Amino acid sequence: MKNVIVTDPPRACIDKVDKLAEYGVATVHEALGRTGFLGPKLRPVHLGSRVGGTAVTVLSWPGDNLMIHAAIEQCQPGDLLVVTTTSPSSDGMFGDLFATALQTRGVRGLVTEAGVRDVAELNAMGFPVWSTAVSAQGTVKATAGAVNIPIIIGGQTIRPGDAVLADDDGVMVVPRGDVDRAIEAAQARTDKEEATRTAFRDGELGLDRYGLRAKLAELGVEYISAEQHLL
Amino acid sequence: MKNVIVTDPPRACIDKVDKLAEYGVATVHEALGRTGFLGPKLRPVHLGSRVGGTAVTVLSWPGDNLMIHAAIEQCQPGDLLVVTTTSPSSDGMFGDLFATALQTRGVRGLVTEAGVRDVAELNAMGFPVWSTAVSAQGTVKATAGAVNIPIIIGGQTIRPGDAVLADDDGVMVVPRGDVDRAIEAAQARTDKEEATRTAFRDGELGLDRYGLRAKLAELGVEYISAEQHLL
Amino acid sequence: MKNVIVTDPPRACIDKVDKLAEYGVATVHEALGRTGFLGPKLRPVHLGSRVGGTAVTVLSWPGDNLMIHAAIEQCQPGDLLVVTTTSPSSDGMFGDLFATALQTRGVRGLVTEAGVRDVAELNAMGFPVWSTAVSAQGTVKATAGAVNIPIIIGGQTIRPGDAVLADDDGVMVVPRGDVDRAIEAAQARTDKEEATRTAFRDGELGLDRYGLRAKLAELGVEYISAEQHLL
Amino acid sequence: MKNVIVTDPPRACIDKVDKLAEYGVATVHEALGRTGFLGPKLRPVHLGSRVGGTAVTVLSWPGDNLMIHAAIEQCQPGDLLVVTTTSPSSDGMFGDLFATALQTRGVRGLVTEAGVRDVAELNAMGFPVWSTAVSAQGTVKATAGAVNIPIIIGGQTIRPGDAVLADDDGVMVVPRGDVDRAIEAAQARTDKEEATRTAFRDGELGLDRYGLRAKLAELGVEYISAEQHLL
Amino acid sequence: MKNVIVTDPPRACIDKVDKLAEYGVATVHEALGRTGFLGPKLRPVHLGSRVGGTAVTVLSWPGDNLMIHAAIEQCQPGDLLVVTTTSPSSDGMFGDLFATALQTRGVRGLVTEAGVRDVAELNAMGFPVWSTAVSAQGTVKATAGAVNIPIIIGGQTIRPGDAVLADDDGVMVVPRGDVDRAIEAAQARTDKEEATRTAFRDGELGLDRYGLRAKLAELGVEYISAEQHLL
Amino acid sequence: MKNVIVTDPPRACIDKVDKLAEYGVATVHEALGRTGFLGPKLRPVHLGSRVGGTAVTVLSWPGDNLMIHAAIEQCQPGDLLVVTTTSPSSDGMFGDLFATALQTRGVRGLVTEAGVRDVAELNAMGFPVWSTAVSAQGTVKATAGAVNIPIIIGGQTIRPGDAVLADDDGVMVVPRGDVDRAIEAAQARTDKEEATRTAFRDGELGLDRYGLRAKLAELGVEYISAEQHLL
Repeated sequence: MKNVIVTDPPRACIDKVDKLAEYGVATVHEALGRTGFLGPKLRPVHLGSRVGGTAVTVLSWPGDNLMIHAAIEQCQPGDLLVVTTTSPSSDGMFGDLFATALQTRGVRGLVTEAGVRDVAELNAMGFPVWSTAVSAQGTVKATAGAVNIPIIIGGQTIRPGDAVLADDDGVMVVPRGDVDRAIEAAQARTDKEEATRTAFRDGELGLDRYGLRAKLAELGVEYISAEQHLL
Repeated sequence: MKNVIVTDPPRACIDKVDKLAEYGVATVHEALGRTGFLGPKLRPVHLGSRVGGTAVTVLSWPGDNLMIHAAIEQCQPGDLLVVTTTSPSSDGMFGDLFATALQTRGVRGLVTEAGVRDVAELNAMGFPVWSTAVSAQGTVKATAGAVNIPIIIGGQTIRPGDAVLADDDGVMVVPRGDVDRAIEAAQARTDKEEATRTAFRDGELGLDRYGLRAKLAELGVEYISAEQHLL
Repeated sequence: MKNVIVTDPPRACIDKVDKLAEYGVATVHEALGRTGFLGPKLRPVHLGSRVGGTAVTVLSWPGDNLMIHAAIEQCQPGDLLVVTTTSPSSDGMFGDLFATALQTRGVRGLVTEAGVRDVAELNAMGFPVWSTAVSAQGTVKATAGAVNIPIIIGGQTIRPGDAVLADDDGVMVVPRGDVDRAIEAAQARTDKEEATRTAFRDGELGLDRYGLRAKLAELGVEYISAEQHLL
Repeated sequence: MKNVIVTDPPRACIDKVDKLAEYGVATVHEALGRTGFLGPKLRPVHLGSRVGGTAVTVLSWPGDNLMIHAAIEQCQPGDLLVVTTTSPSSDGMFGDLFATALQTRGVRGLVTEAGVRDVAELNAMGFPVWSTAVSAQGTVKATAGAVNIPIIIGGQTIRPGDAVLADDDGVMVVPRGDVDRAIEAAQARTDKEEATRTAFRDGELGLDRYGLRAKLAELGVEYISAEQHLL
Repeated sequence: MKNVIVTDPPRACIDKVDKLAEYGVATVHEALGRTGFLGPKLRPVHLGSRVGGTAVTVLSWPGDNLMIHAAIEQCQPGDLLVVTTTSPSSDGMFGDLFATALQTRGVRGLVTEAGVRDVAELNAMGFPVWSTAVSAQGTVKATAGAVNIPIIIGGQTIRPGDAVLADDDGVMVVPRGDVDRAIEAAQARTDKEEATRTAFRDGELGLDRYGLRAKLAELGVEYISAEQHLL
Repeated sequence: MKNVIVTDPPRACIDKVDKLAEYGVATVHEALGRTGFLGPKLRPVHLGSRVGGTAVTVLSWPGDNLMIHAAIEQCQPGDLLVVTTTSPSSDGMFGDLFATALQTRGVRGLVTEAGVRDVAELNAMGFPVWSTAVSAQGTVKATAGAVNIPIIIGGQTIRPGDAVLADDDGVMVVPRGDVDRAIEAAQARTDKEEATRTAFRDGELGLDRYGLRAKLAELGVEYISAEQHLL
């Protein structure tokens, strides 16, 4: 682990990130060829938020939140703090005091692979959080880590300045350089989905719309009546 | 895995299934001798629903939702779609487009041993879902599976046309042939519970109501004062 | 396992427990030197409660709720029932009938390392519950256990009469003899947190407030610009 | 749960089961269209065994081994005891005394979804065991269950008298009526695998042997040199 | 967490601990009324050891092995080092250098709720280890903890000087004051088991030996032939 | 997911990788500042191997081994095949036929985040395997993936041609460009460890050797006799 704090990384354009966030995580993930999802273990502490932001990344030692303090100074409006630990940890590394500091700086929310606490207070503040655990267990400030280096959560690399999107379906990363393409692809997919939604409401089947009857036949799937199946 | 789509299985009477659902999963499970519960891993994505329906069953390859498309054509009003995979999977196999198609056909909800996505939209639509995961991770349409064959979730066999009940306590199956008996047993248990509830409100103890003092004595459980216990 | 039911254990003063509960689990845990937290696996079934009570403890066989019946008789107003099992179990050992009996006796809530059921009803009753699972799976009344002996959950010892606090951040125990000290420490920490909150709102950084810049330097953490980092 | 002990179920022919076992679990599972595997959680306590037997099935309450005692009387030479519990349990329900009784009756081994103990002694006795846990935690004999009813482990139904095969790759069930077909299919697959093994030793690629180059092309997989990929 | 290193705790008599260890964990656990087992998550890194020792206890911060260094000085011949962390951790806190130091001091082995590494070397040294994980992940020496205070693993309290027994079935604690009673109870159980073993080899059934036929009848378990069951 | 097969990536020098492997995973991981470890979930199927190789990487769909076939053609002597899936999977994607093909081509072993089967045969062949599961469950050849693109396992990025080291402590990656530095650092650490080993055998304590007594004092850790502690 390189113990560095990288200052002023280039960031994705926050207006574009905001636009991208509106499409929702599932849509953008699908539009980008099913890439960038940070996995089902990261869940919102409270349902109902949908946000995007530019990543400030933190790599901490388990049970130690020293580097979150260091990261706050690096945050600017439109950022979203993204934290992982060198080994798995469920400790409550983050609470309402940190959220106060971040909210004051215009930060959009927190994504952490570890735990959070003060979750009633966080909800009352309107500060959205995605984590793998809620835990009152506190932490120390004793060990070095890093801020704004590339980190990995759920098999995805998050670089400082990347767009991070989060809603009730989870969290995803869109590399800074892919934001324009992502907006385009997400809009195209949204248009297509809207057309499909209308068609489905009108009773069309996916089997027909996507040409899947031929696929089923090719795979050898057979239709059989219940009477025959039981014989 | 037999790659078949079974058409028109006999179904439990939906009016009776609806009646049964009102008793709640815990009550019906208990009334049937503690059978049929699909286990604690299946949770509602949003709390507050209580539904019943006749099962249309799907067996899919992990990461592949082809057979859900095939299953939708087999659904009719009052059905409840029940999905499992040949190996464990948390992928988001199901989202709001599928829900639109199902809702249009009068389907009551979804139970899946895999994951779902678009959960904010599903909630807004009022389409209830029970799953083991929420995940934006998308799936392909490449591999054969089966529709309306018996499947197993949480150690319980679900046959097409069986009654499936779901609420905040989880999901259970009542075999099609047991629905009448289940209603009778659930009503009896509800009556008994209501009497017990009244008795408990009046201060009666379970120890007395169920004759458990003798049981405790027989098992050698001793009463001892705190002073004596600490000596 | 000693099969005893200990009667009338000395209890922490309920007024003081109530006062302590108001500070919240995270604050009291931190104020006591990060001790007493029962771990992140115990979660509220519904978010939004904050309660305290004096522990009545139960040790049960997995899949068996006989001893909960025995425990209810030992409960008095202000108590909080705390249940564990001799081996891990997710079964729904507790439901709305038990809650009715406890609520009638003035019990504050339930904490259990096993599962609960009837959770929609429990919420409607306003009876708060913390558990590791929700499960409709019922239990028998066949095997001996103990009431009001010291039990262990999440690596913490809970003695009968100890103060147990629970909110959205989880559950913690404060030994009966430590309640006064805990109130004092929690008040001091609350005062300190309030001052910090104000400072953070005014833009002060934790790096400065806690003197962490020197710590970072001592640990060899270096600041580096993004341009230099990429070179 | 129906509390019955079913006597003298029809059994698969043990000579055929023995023959089938020699092919190994992975081969038979594959030969039968990838069906019957009880999942990766069931592991041999000691590596190196490969056995088959006719199932005597047990459904027990968690933490209770009463029904194993009842099952032993139902065992005959060539049987294999298969145990599950009504709820998940890791308790050590089975140890060297049970193994002594079973070995005396010519039973081939134990498969259990719960835990076992005395594993050093079991190994010294040459009695093979597959389980999900090793645990010294003992159990009681207090609650009813069933023997020789269909049970479900890992999503597979095991009926009394079915062929159960177990080796270092895990455990699988072959329904009693499918044993002849399974032998035939396993022999065919073994022959085919042997030819493939020889071909692979001679340097042939699966890509060519299975015609997968066309598949890759059809799926749009492109070959690209490392230089081009990095540009 | 109280940051203390307690010196020279009274220890159980090592000769008696050695004698007790010979009975094996499962036997002693059962003889003491099924108490003291540290749970199935603690597994030997290599099968085949059976040791006992007097506990030197360590409470460490996750990812930090400073207190193990402090603990070594407190170890004397016959001791067994028992380590836990304030939050769950799988890091490899312990390797062959520590084992060299401990072996030099006559320490019997290591039990840790965290991870170990250098496990090939530990095996070559003949130094037995029980842990919940093997992990090459290294740790720091930055945070305070405690030595020789009571710790809790798997729901069991281990006090310094207590007897700790470990073999292929796992790990258990016998409180220092219970060692004499434990030897007596373990010998009695061993004698009883030996008689049962002989009886089982002679074909006697547990159903008869333990009087379980009456129990089955009382619980309503019915015998039924396979023919009748299928009708 | 980009569906590409990258050919002829530059590889680390295999002689140097072999030299590096001899130091063992724990030593190299520590020597490189505790980086590169793929986490404790990847375990050797059989203990006792220590190998290194140059990575050929595979990204597969869960339950689908098509891309492993494609990868084999890309393998050359000294390589080590490293496989992950787009979503978690325990399926047995790899068995002795694949191992035969790889061994014929001089490949050193397999590392997979999914499952393997035929493990008795793999052991007999002397082909070492690290995986997260053993499972007889077979897979299809239906979905596109990638070969020799960067993949992520356990939070570590593995690029084709990187050095991958594996032994009983798990698996780690050393980036191709860091191999020389890693050899140097590992040799230095080995020398230092050997000196420490000798010192520990002579009775020196880590407390003194690493200057930790001052650290303990600084952290406020106090020594206290057992008598005082109990007062």
